[in-house]
Amino acid sequence: MSLLVIGSVAFDAIETPFGKTDKIVGGAGTYASLAASYFYDKIKLVGVVGEDFPQSEIDDFHKHHIDTEGLQIKMGEKSFFWSGKYHNDMNSRDTLVTELNVLGTFDPIIPDSYQDCKFLMLGNLSPQVQQTVIKRLHNRPRLIVMDTMNFWMNIALDDLLETLKMVDVLTINDEEARQLSGEYSLVKAARKIVTMGPKYLIIKKGEHGALLFHEDKIFAAPALPLAEVYDPTGAGDTFAGGFIGYMAHMGEVSFENMKNAIIYGSALASFCVEKFGTEKIKNLTKDDIVARVQEFVRLSKFNIIS
Amino acid sequence: MSLLVIGSVAFDAIETPFGKTDKIVGGAGTYASLAASYFYDKIKLVGVVGEDFPQSEIDDFHKHHIDTEGLQIKMGEKSFFWSGKYHNDMNSRDTLVTELNVLGTFDPIIPDSYQDCKFLMLGNLSPQVQQTVIKRLHNRPRLIVMDTMNFWMNIALDDLLETLKMVDVLTINDEEARQLSGEYSLVKAARKIVTMGPKYLIIKKGEHGALLFHEDKIFAAPALPLAEVYDPTGAGDTFAGGFIGYMAHMGEVSFENMKNAIIYGSALASFCVEKFGTEKIKNLTKDDIVARVQEFVRLSKFNIIS
Repeated sequence: MSLLVIGSVAFDAIETPFGKTDKIVGGAGTYASLAASYFYDKIKLVGVVGEDFPQSEIDDFHKHHIDTEGLQIKMGEKSFFWSGKYHNDMNSRDTLVTELNVLGTFDPIIPDSYQDCKFLMLGNLSPQVQQTVIKRLHNRPRLIVMDTMNFWMNIALDDLLETLKMVDVLTINDEEARQLSGEYSLVKAARKIVTMGPKYLIIKKGEHGALLFHEDKIFAAPALPLAEVYDPTGAGDTFAGGFIGYMAHMGEVSFENMKNAIIYGSALASFCVEKFGTEKIKNLTKDDIVARVQEFVRLSKFNIIS
Repeated sequence: MSLLVIGSVAFDAIETPFGKTDKIVGGAGTYASLAASYFYDKIKLVGVVGEDFPQSEIDDFHKHHIDTEGLQIKMGEKSFFWSGKYHNDMNSRDTLVTELNVLGTFDPIIPDSYQDCKFLMLGNLSPQVQQTVIKRLHNRPRLIVMDTMNFWMNIALDDLLETLKMVDVLTINDEEARQLSGEYSLVKAARKIVTMGPKYLIIKKGEHGALLFHEDKIFAAPALPLAEVYDPTGAGDTFAGGFIGYMAHMGEVSFENMKNAIIYGSALASFCVEKFGTEKIKNLTKDDIVARVQEFVRLSKFNIIS
């Protein structure tokens, strides 16, 4: 039994009101697998990098018990590169550079040793590639979580809708939920989206927390109010990785477990934004996480009896 | 012992994507006192109306055990009138008409029978008028809650800062907290604002819930996700009224009681927006409120042990 994470493994160059980085390692696959590694120790990564990708970063995956047999290294080619600049509110950003490089022709190869996968995290990538991964698994995983973004709704909506039919949980932000459903009310948006395939919908609202929708049930998780947000890059991927890592740890797919998984994912995401890139989420301890999750408990607890 | 509510008692004409009203009764004092009336039965209203204000509306206050001895009726004059149009997102609106009328010269007279006030709700009004009310009370109330808005920050900041020093709880929205503090981060904004006078700060975030700050503690309350928001007018006043009504009911001023008070205030606000004007919050039952509060409990409960 294992947790398979697919997503970009890449370079980012980031500018925020707090500073600027050169090329640092990022990518949905990187953030999600690192976050998941704090909850589960059989994580298998599928992705592609160029020969410019540092071995030390691959060593760091191994230190986190992340299997990289499925991480293809394309000699003579370059890794995916994204550069962006955040506005003062940290909620919006401009993309400065996107170089697809190895990601442009990415064919996700699933090693035989990955076929025991019971939990699948489809990090943000083209829905066509996400779908290929599902099809190449001999047995359907117990839980498939899919992350996506408005970019794919704009250029590959048909593929996206096709892939959606094959997954259990979709994670998108509030604007994307509105775009996908054509409904402004998030309740109405959720009602539509859960008929498109995923039985569970998680709407990520950044500093306002997250909402989980399933059947007629809703769970609202707060975000931890932070004094400083240095770099929001990867927060959504980290959230998703923490979420599915916790679910894999628990084993059973239920609404109750997902509520806790959202709190753990939110806790990991709150660490992610406190430093640039993966610096913070590479270096957490179990105690850090327990203490942070207790902050979420204190933050949202009140004493009206049910 | 009583709860004194001061605020506008007025006419509104409202246009939302769901419809349009003629002049209907509104105003901060109206919404706040009606909301508080579900928790506490000694509510005393201070305000001013013109002779155009219908007796039937005053009778409705009485039905809710709201004392109107302090509601001045100015013969030959007209009540305050506001007209606004909400945009499709319901989060922003344009003011179409503001006629101050009787509110332009409002001198808040406190009847002797109101001097037993232990809880004071200063609904959104000029900070000068709010301050006058505090000064005219012979004994300082146990809890003073002040609501205000960006309008007063723009035109009467000095008065506002002076009044702030005299209150215990300030309720404002996130943009107003940023404007008042000059800080984008709400955590930093709160740290500054709680040095300006109020030891407690409530930041109202509309569909994203509310945050309570006190010393180093934070409480995050969710908003109930609603399929339809017909009319947001008065939601903030209703929230504040429900909040202080619950606090007066409990009697003791504590962070723990305030957390519950925010949930009750949020529940009342969630009813308010489901119909135009005061229609919904005039006609609630205790059972309606208990059931709605249980929705908040279910919405935010998870099972990580503290």
